[in-house]
Amino acid sequence: MEISALQKARYEYTPKLPGMLRNGIADICVKEGEATQSVADQDKIKALFPNTYGEKEITFEKGQNTSAPKKQVVGVILSGGQAPGGHNVICGLYDALKATNKENVLYGFKGGPSGLINDDFVEFDDEFINQYRNTGGFDIIGSGRTKLETEEQFAIVSEVCKKHGVTAVVIIGGDDSNTNAAVLAEYFAAHNTGVQVIGCPKTIDGDLKNEDIECSFGFDTATKTYSEIIGNIERDANSAKKYWHFVKVMGRSASHVALECALQTQPSICLVSEEVAAKKMSLSQIADYIADSVAKRAAKGMNFGVAIIPEGVVEFVPEFSVLIQEINELLAGSKAEAFNALATWEEKYSFIEKGLTKESMEVFAILPQAIQQQLFLERDPHGNVQVSLIESEKLFSALVKDKLEARRAAGTYNGKFSALHHFLGYEGRCAFPSNFDSDYCYSLGYNAFMLIQYGYNGYLSKVSNLSKPASEWVAGGMPITKMMNIERRHGEDKPVIKKALVELDGAPFKYFEAHREQWAEDTCFVYPGAIQYYGPTEVCDATTKTLALEHAE
Amino acid sequence: MEISALQKARYEYTPKLPGMLRNGIADICVKEGEATQSVADQDKIKALFPNTYGEKEITFEKGQNTSAPKKQVVGVILSGGQAPGGHNVICGLYDALKATNKENVLYGFKGGPSGLINDDFVEFDDEFINQYRNTGGFDIIGSGRTKLETEEQFAIVSEVCKKHGVTAVVIIGGDDSNTNAAVLAEYFAAHNTGVQVIGCPKTIDGDLKNEDIECSFGFDTATKTYSEIIGNIERDANSAKKYWHFVKVMGRSASHVALECALQTQPSICLVSEEVAAKKMSLSQIADYIADSVAKRAAKGMNFGVAIIPEGVVEFVPEFSVLIQEINELLAGSKAEAFNALATWEEKYSFIEKGLTKESMEVFAILPQAIQQQLFLERDPHGNVQVSLIESEKLFSALVKDKLEARRAAGTYNGKFSALHHFLGYEGRCAFPSNFDSDYCYSLGYNAFMLIQYGYNGYLSKVSNLSKPASEWVAGGMPITKMMNIERRHGEDKPVIKKALVELDGAPFKYFEAHREQWAEDTCFVYPGAIQYYGPTEVCDATTKTLALEHAE
Repeated sequence: MEISALQKARYEYTPKLPGMLRNGIADICVKEGEATQSVADQDKIKALFPNTYGEKEITFEKGQNTSAPKKQVVGVILSGGQAPGGHNVICGLYDALKATNKENVLYGFKGGPSGLINDDFVEFDDEFINQYRNTGGFDIIGSGRTKLETEEQFAIVSEVCKKHGVTAVVIIGGDDSNTNAAVLAEYFAAHNTGVQVIGCPKTIDGDLKNEDIECSFGFDTATKTYSEIIGNIERDANSAKKYWHFVKVMGRSASHVALECALQTQPSICLVSEEVAAKKMSLSQIADYIADSVAKRAAKGMNFGVAIIPEGVVEFVPEFSVLIQEINELLAGSKAEAFNALATWEEKYSFIEKGLTKESMEVFAILPQAIQQQLFLERDPHGNVQVSLIESEKLFSALVKDKLEARRAAGTYNGKFSALHHFLGYEGRCAFPSNFDSDYCYSLGYNAFMLIQYGYNGYLSKVSNLSKPASEWVAGGMPITKMMNIERRHGEDKPVIKKALVELDGAPFKYFEAHREQWAEDTCFVYPGAIQYYGPTEVCDATTKTLALEHAE
Repeated sequence: MEISALQKARYEYTPKLPGMLRNGIADICVKEGEATQSVADQDKIKALFPNTYGEKEITFEKGQNTSAPKKQVVGVILSGGQAPGGHNVICGLYDALKATNKENVLYGFKGGPSGLINDDFVEFDDEFINQYRNTGGFDIIGSGRTKLETEEQFAIVSEVCKKHGVTAVVIIGGDDSNTNAAVLAEYFAAHNTGVQVIGCPKTIDGDLKNEDIECSFGFDTATKTYSEIIGNIERDANSAKKYWHFVKVMGRSASHVALECALQTQPSICLVSEEVAAKKMSLSQIADYIADSVAKRAAKGMNFGVAIIPEGVVEFVPEFSVLIQEINELLAGSKAEAFNALATWEEKYSFIEKGLTKESMEVFAILPQAIQQQLFLERDPHGNVQVSLIESEKLFSALVKDKLEARRAAGTYNGKFSALHHFLGYEGRCAFPSNFDSDYCYSLGYNAFMLIQYGYNGYLSKVSNLSKPASEWVAGGMPITKMMNIERRHGEDKPVIKKALVELDGAPFKYFEAHREQWAEDTCFVYPGAIQYYGPTEVCDATTKTLALEHAE
């Protein structure tokens, strides 16, 4: 099998563990902290997790290993979207497991959570795992989006674990997957299966973050990869001096990715969904905000710029959400048939005009025709508008163009506006993990095994103090229930890990807010370039601006 | 001004010169080679270039510098699309110029060739130029697409040169810009201006290549950047196992970029425009070719893959070119009014059906509606179809989908096909130049000054033996007229540098051809990862697969 020169070189990289885990397995002991409470809704969460609630926070220290010498058979799964470093979590887990006892076994369940249900797995050995050290992707065992959340599923998983003598399951996933990990842990405890569950915080979106988890893995590498590309595009814009580039980046629920990329590349414009929601901005206001930058730059002779658009931003525009609801209503059930029977777009447009409220029709009317048609013609199996398919980068450039034409007619703008569009998503989820993610992920996996070995259940592998060098990182575990609250989901109260949105009074946004006016009017582009794995430490080992700002002293 | 950690680190990089240029200016002498002839149409080319035709090929050697000690005032321009390394050409030129005589002056004419006409320039000094060493982009002086080709323009350029005492002009550009450089050189010679012209071979497309020029600069970095992203997408495809990614890459006239990316990443499919043209493939045949891979992979349980599509491929499909011609005819002049007056797409479709030949209508009929409409609705100011706007990645995925549905109906295919689309262009043109491009470009610029200093005119800066370490590179110059032939352009016979297309009997294509069947059926993805500037030499200093295969011994 052919592999690249970089892949070969990366096999030789030795990930850095937190100082306290570097003394060898025999010299790792537990320091117990305080008993924990969930961040909110304590009584309800406690009632739902009678066997796993309120456990103590723990950290590892140098000291004699006092864990029971039990043979461990661990199963691991990768859940949800790819994030750089997933392979290293498994490598760290494997190395700690084998260093503890050569008889220990690590199974990888294939294709995500469904692998646990379908009893589809591979047993890791050195030769196999060595092919995946410090590499990107989840191809080692594949991933999947099946959710483990029903009693029936848990019963099957219990059977599978029993069949193979599995003593612990490690779930590498985002907020939902770790919520389900906690529920599975409670099930295992309640049914005295003796099987433990440990979660690891994964997601490039950066929205699995709280007072315990400083960041999820993959965010560092993905945002560096997007920032490399955005920087290249900025440099192109600043060389050709004739295009505005609208760059959509992944992140439907939160704008951490967009904000981090903006902090790294200093674009002319970056929208932040959380701000759009907080200020209840309309599409027209957003378009005017961007058009202001275009016009100010044009007045200085700069008919170019770069705008970063978070993938989910239109869903945060209140008037747009109302429009979507109305469209869903308008075409619900059999009403869609009358609409579909209309032959031409003109007839359909009249139908829409009659069906929407005046306010929503005003919003609808300013949309480019391609997006108007998309809203009505491409619907999911339930007849709902597929908001995620909306090309918001094209939507905003079209709205901005209209604004500029109006200004030109009014004599307040006399520039040129030519837009190009990009979407950055799949480009960054499987990059070779940065040194930071290589180290962090390996540590998470190594640490996860120590939690297993010490008998913990329903814990998240926790490595903190991440803005410092790895030698100063702190390794330990936190009961997942501590991060939970109750939220309404699909009409039901559910215990879930609270999703971390961009905080408008947090340091990263504050920094952005303080500088964005200058970035919008002048050209302040920064070109981060490609992720470097070798070379000067300030180039290779720097973490995200987000983490640095959040933990600045 | 804020700059990235990598940019700061790259300032410190010392580009590697060819061994023979490392002895210091005082120790570089000229070795004259044979008198040259143009590659074809010798009589016609000679007649067009009476003053500059037939000059000798030269190489530089270690030996006493015998050039005249004349003060040089050099003007440099960047022409056309951005390519990584342009800044280093200027840095090398500046360093050689200043090392020869501190009184020498380098002007950068701004915004491309128009800077020479508008007399808009900047004078370089150490502080200014040091900000651009080993960086990407053309932002140092900007670029532009104005063509210097008329006598009127040449007269103005002569005046500008005279006004500032310019002794030589360096033109950094692609095949057209270097053709124009030769014509300008002839003009200068014919008019006894005493001004010399030297060209430097730039283009990420890789199509400025011949027996003298082993590769144009920027091709290495751009293809490495695209291959990084394609590799990441492949790894994502192989992890999620549910998408086919159609990746369009830049390159309208030639498929070198697509082919190099394929050699680096081993995708399931890569189209090569030159092969499509040679085999006179139809859209239907191409779609079947891709669908074969989809079906074979699906039969093995792999409902995913990656297809690389060169930007210009549809223009190489003979039946498609005919269709475009017919559409242009159908809507020429006043005929467009009748078409535009039709209210609905259905009416327009009937008009089209009547107007096209049966053969072209068959081609038109299989196109997705969005592309059908685009062909008729988006036309350039002359009323012509804008072929470059066609989203060929979406065109082919739509055609493949239709093919697969037909196979499903026939019972010969039972897989899942879900496609995602990408376009890689602006993402790679302004990346930090790879070590190869940093070295090559710096050498081209340094060498260009030596050609100026030794009095050459109408030469291309030539650095060869590039598949070897830089110490073994050979520096010299080649009369641009040697690379020329006569081609029909816009109804006129013109002397031009022959564009290098992918040769179907060349080593790069042959290698691809020998392996592609396996790549189509199995998963042979290679993940090159991000360009590395530091670290193991096999990771950092390897050149392109194209160059390695073309010069393998």
